[in-house]
Amino acid sequence: MSVEPLEAPQAESTAFQREEVGLATRNHGMPLEALRYDTTPAGLHYLLIHFDVPEVDAGAWRLEVRGLVSRPRSLSLGEIRDMEATTLTVTLECAGNGRAMLSPRPVSQPWGQEAIGTAAWTGVELRTVLAEAGLAADAREVVFTGLDRGIDGGLEQDYARSLTLEEATAGGPLLAYEMNGAPLPPQHGFPLRLVMPGWYGMASVKWLRSIEAVAQPFDGYQVVHAYRFRRTEDEPGVPLSRIQPRALMEPPGIPEYLSRDRFVAPGPCHVRGRAWSGWAPVARVEFSADGGASWADADLGPAAGPYAWRPWLHTWDAGPGTYELCCRATDAAGNVQPLRAEWNVGGYTNNSVQRVPVTVRPD
Amino acid sequence: MSVEPLEAPQAESTAFQREEVGLATRNHGMPLEALRYDTTPAGLHYLLIHFDVPEVDAGAWRLEVRGLVSRPRSLSLGEIRDMEATTLTVTLECAGNGRAMLSPRPVSQPWGQEAIGTAAWTGVELRTVLAEAGLAADAREVVFTGLDRGIDGGLEQDYARSLTLEEATAGGPLLAYEMNGAPLPPQHGFPLRLVMPGWYGMASVKWLRSIEAVAQPFDGYQVVHAYRFRRTEDEPGVPLSRIQPRALMEPPGIPEYLSRDRFVAPGPCHVRGRAWSGWAPVARVEFSADGGASWADADLGPAAGPYAWRPWLHTWDAGPGTYELCCRATDAAGNVQPLRAEWNVGGYTNNSVQRVPVTVRPD
Repeated sequence: MSVEPLEAPQAESTAFQREEVGLATRNHGMPLEALRYDTTPAGLHYLLIHFDVPEVDAGAWRLEVRGLVSRPRSLSLGEIRDMEATTLTVTLECAGNGRAMLSPRPVSQPWGQEAIGTAAWTGVELRTVLAEAGLAADAREVVFTGLDRGIDGGLEQDYARSLTLEEATAGGPLLAYEMNGAPLPPQHGFPLRLVMPGWYGMASVKWLRSIEAVAQPFDGYQVVHAYRFRRTEDEPGVPLSRIQPRALMEPPGIPEYLSRDRFVAPGPCHVRGRAWSGWAPVARVEFSADGGASWADADLGPAAGPYAWRPWLHTWDAGPGTYELCCRATDAAGNVQPLRAEWNVGGYTNNSVQRVPVTVRPD
Repeated sequence: MSVEPLEAPQAESTAFQREEVGLATRNHGMPLEALRYDTTPAGLHYLLIHFDVPEVDAGAWRLEVRGLVSRPRSLSLGEIRDMEATTLTVTLECAGNGRAMLSPRPVSQPWGQEAIGTAAWTGVELRTVLAEAGLAADAREVVFTGLDRGIDGGLEQDYARSLTLEEATAGGPLLAYEMNGAPLPPQHGFPLRLVMPGWYGMASVKWLRSIEAVAQPFDGYQVVHAYRFRRTEDEPGVPLSRIQPRALMEPPGIPEYLSRDRFVAPGPCHVRGRAWSGWAPVARVEFSADGGASWADADLGPAAGPYAWRPWLHTWDAGPGTYELCCRATDAAGNVQPLRAEWNVGGYTNNSVQRVPVTVRPD
């Protein structure tokens, strides 16, 4: 069945719609104080669930590997667990992170900047499974289909995304069955998901039911229509892939409950955070206490691996007054976070610098 | 330090404020399809965090038991774990659940109906710890203080709540260090929290640092001002305590991404859900497919214990058309869910019946 296609709706900045709040309540951001953890504890990692979390009987579940392969397979979870295991620490981020700061605001999940998380994912390398199945010479893409089904953009669909053969057979992509050393929680894709390191989260298809090698570019909704950077409704746009650089800080001091305004005691304030990029290692993080007018280099710590965020630290001498704290990441490929976002139809990849207003005053 | 006291703000129903969306992104609802689980998996249970998740060094942490006791104690986590352990399956719900459906809407965390969850909590009975400390004859209340600090209603404070001696020494209240068989996640109160079965979640103080017996009724903000049922700003109101009855269903069929509208195939539709009350066992759940004009009794299953929700099931013969599905719980004390909420200043205890619009049509 199908419903009427939707125009991409836009909203003015001050009033959020009920549908946006509904999504914000279903989906989960990572409270930014959780930047303190090298790996994000279960339940604090961001979640974007397009449809419903599907119900899965792990005993009956199979991963179908099919299409243009010489040895189609129907793999049980036990058979996958018996294969050689790899663990990667990966920072994931939703492509829509930062959407709620655009104006006008594309109406969808209204992320501030909390759609992030880092976990240790354990599973089998995707290229191992594909090699075992034997890709045919005319295979051009690999399509990943989940068990989650619903309606998006007026089309009923299973959630599905594709990778090119080159992307799928490179090192990195993992078919993961564990998160932080425990079986995947239902909401993170139990029993098996793709983890695509360095890419925005839409590529890491959860609740996998099939992997299919195909001869033509996949034309599914989540590839052809959604998750594209488009400046107008009329242009085809550019598909999203790797994560733009971003640094975030743990907001210092204590919060006010409703506004989340921050209050800091005077004196040396150890501001810490994390930074990442899907294009290259993070090479620099800068800190500003004056809204980006002047910057100082922060100290960078080591990442837990090539796909994980780097910790950073800067000691700020906080005198009484009001401030706008900012941080900014630069990666080794020269990508720098912008001060202002570039507007786009879907509200994607807004990696403009974080701004944290704080008031410094005596206890 | 303190800031200006806030008036309780109200908003019209259609436009949500940025602060509300910020809270909705930080805090977590339980996606209603998770009603399928007897106990809610980690990361799907609701979360309401007033200030920040505090950072705790479990080795250095101590629980101070003090005030009007004959044997003050400073207990390590190991000492608490060495005491006799009890496990209780408890359904918790935020007192603000349902707030976003009130009009005008009190501006705070804008819950739909997802601020729920059921977990197996393991810990030490509160009365055991109090008996060991030896309550003095003039002790009247027990004050529970957390490590979470911030500003609420214009007052800087540690989150703190009290119980009367009678409430604190009854069976039920638990000092919990495990959730679903694992150490508490940081966001659920690591290393130790109070779990107050049958009560709204505000009573179950997380990140406990002290338990203090006092001679006078505690006048902390979270008892005297917040979490009271008030029809006007001027009245003192009634403190919230036990959970009003509620039944919820897993929304059947498949969703549209943004609107969460539901689409169901024609034929027998097995609608299932959970129901609970903090006042008495759930005695009845009814189902309606016509917005509450007519009702049919659902089948009730057994609860996992006296403090846990009961499963229910109703088979609805779904013919093509549009419907408003509802469910309604009645407890053994005769409390019934209302069809319409009673408005109040803080937006608390809105247990009006769930309404799920669905469209039934062929695939």
